[in-house]
Amino acid sequence: MTASLPPRTVEWIGGLDGHVALIDQTRLPERLVFVEVRDPVAMWDAIKRLVVRGAPAIGVAAAFGAVLGVRPFRGDTPGLLAELDHACEYLKSSRPTAVNLAWALERVRRRARDAETESSEAIKLILLNEAQAIRDEDEAMCRAIGRHGLGLIHDGSSILTHCNAGSLATAFYGTALAPIYAAHERGLKVRVLATETRPLFQGARLTIWELHQAGIDVTLLTDGMVASLLQSKAVDLVITGADRIAANGDTANKIGTYGIALAAHAHGVPFYIAAPSSTFDLALPDGSAIPIEFRDPDEIRRGFGRVTTVPDIPCYSPAFDITPARYIRGILTERGIIQPVERKSIESLLKA
Amino acid sequence: MTASLPPRTVEWIGGLDGHVALIDQTRLPERLVFVEVRDPVAMWDAIKRLVVRGAPAIGVAAAFGAVLGVRPFRGDTPGLLAELDHACEYLKSSRPTAVNLAWALERVRRRARDAETESSEAIKLILLNEAQAIRDEDEAMCRAIGRHGLGLIHDGSSILTHCNAGSLATAFYGTALAPIYAAHERGLKVRVLATETRPLFQGARLTIWELHQAGIDVTLLTDGMVASLLQSKAVDLVITGADRIAANGDTANKIGTYGIALAAHAHGVPFYIAAPSSTFDLALPDGSAIPIEFRDPDEIRRGFGRVTTVPDIPCYSPAFDITPARYIRGILTERGIIQPVERKSIESLLKA
Repeated sequence: MTASLPPRTVEWIGGLDGHVALIDQTRLPERLVFVEVRDPVAMWDAIKRLVVRGAPAIGVAAAFGAVLGVRPFRGDTPGLLAELDHACEYLKSSRPTAVNLAWALERVRRRARDAETESSEAIKLILLNEAQAIRDEDEAMCRAIGRHGLGLIHDGSSILTHCNAGSLATAFYGTALAPIYAAHERGLKVRVLATETRPLFQGARLTIWELHQAGIDVTLLTDGMVASLLQSKAVDLVITGADRIAANGDTANKIGTYGIALAAHAHGVPFYIAAPSSTFDLALPDGSAIPIEFRDPDEIRRGFGRVTTVPDIPCYSPAFDITPARYIRGILTERGIIQPVERKSIESLLKA
Repeated sequence: MTASLPPRTVEWIGGLDGHVALIDQTRLPERLVFVEVRDPVAMWDAIKRLVVRGAPAIGVAAAFGAVLGVRPFRGDTPGLLAELDHACEYLKSSRPTAVNLAWALERVRRRARDAETESSEAIKLILLNEAQAIRDEDEAMCRAIGRHGLGLIHDGSSILTHCNAGSLATAFYGTALAPIYAAHERGLKVRVLATETRPLFQGARLTIWELHQAGIDVTLLTDGMVASLLQSKAVDLVITGADRIAANGDTANKIGTYGIALAAHAHGVPFYIAAPSSTFDLALPDGSAIPIEFRDPDEIRRGFGRVTTVPDIPCYSPAFDITPARYIRGILTERGIIQPVERKSIESLLKA
């Protein structure tokens, strides 16, 4: 097998009459197949069912979904703008926690309003260009995160990550995995330790798959093995992604992240978040204001379709947790590393 | 369904020509079936494959296994004692971490040596009686742990536990779950939160099943959800079992325990260990001397026979971790609660 990154996670194929091709992440690692999405209902479903997941990737997917939403519209510009608002509100309801989703939808809406003197057909093309720009910028931001993160990695580094904040979680290249790819491209030997990430195994299925594809040394562990691994001094650095970052640096990310941050803190291992600046939500003063999605308990009770417990037993099923800023050594963004993580340092970086 | 505890985990059926009946814990919660064990090879296999698991239960099972080992012997007493040594060394090799296994085997050996003036046939009966005494005492110790632990629980308490340190992990009644059963019997309303415990789901399969059977309110969560749950202030108390406790109180228990202890510490939630005194290994000064079993990576890579990752990817696969004594608020034993957990308090309680 040639060592290489996966293909683009989200891609628009053809012109305005084209479609969105998504890597079907529910099928990995067994099969690399694409889903063709041609309308917003199918996109809402793909986001909800985690066919496409990862905060930056669902932002890109939603922006394309908005284009699909207005494409069949026949009428004047005010009508199209109303139709766009409707499609965006609908797509935004697919998942509540990742702010990139709302951010990308707000961006295409603003772009359309700025073009309100254009015809409705012209605006459709403007929106497609904007969505493609979001996708291209996402990849560029990921590569910039990789460059900024390179300074944290040396030859022989062991890096722990959680869930999947890799190429599959973005348009391409990843956030938490970007510094690892950047180091690998420069010939540094790195070792990655990846949690399986119950209940949906994004670490085991996606992170292991994409790093293995890229020819990077990667070892799998269950979520409960993290503290033991850190105690054994086998980890130099922890990097995870983020779904939303409040103004004070408190960070929502995949359930399990907070426990990893606590264990890293106990063992003096630096814990970093990697995320594009679209992940910040400065309207929220701290993490307690971030809405947390609770998912279907059957994701816990039925691992891969097999019942692992008493059917219908109640479950605690949050998809995300909040890591307080004080446990985060730094936030890797496309603009640089925010360090220390505090309101002032975040605001000054985002305003720069 | 009548609310009740599961049947005895390990039972000798009949006289010296009888057999051992084990609840097949690999089949729960789907089926409650028993495995009949008639020789030490089958017992070694049952312990290794986790048909019977839980530190106290495997001690009882191994003692019965030693009886099965000498039962076919025809010859004089020195020959029988040599055969017993051989069977015990063999059974001891099934799993390395839980000290109760070695403790129970050493106890039956000592009992046989003390009876060396008896005939070999008489010693066989003495050994069966001794193994049955170990089983009976295990149940009595569990009930005593329950009584001592009652003081930690009030009406409405929420208790987090990990893996299975319930009736299924002992001859009967459990260690970590004993105070919960004792509280339930006294009419207190308690709520239990149980981690699923990857890779082998002992929490989801066994703890959920036995508490649900007993009519106790129980909620399931994945291992990575613990820190979030503790952050939400939904837990009053953590109680887990133990597989081996060093002289300074450092405790080996199911992988994931240490991370829970760290999260409990961060949130000021008291973290207790519950274990019979046979779990202490005073020969070991601290937890770094406790041997940790590493298990087959396919337990991680193949959840219930389905591949969850890239086949043959390397795994970190410890079955246990070490929780330093400083994170343990107290150790519940059949003799009382050791609190604070330190060498002197352990020694004085065990000598009392």
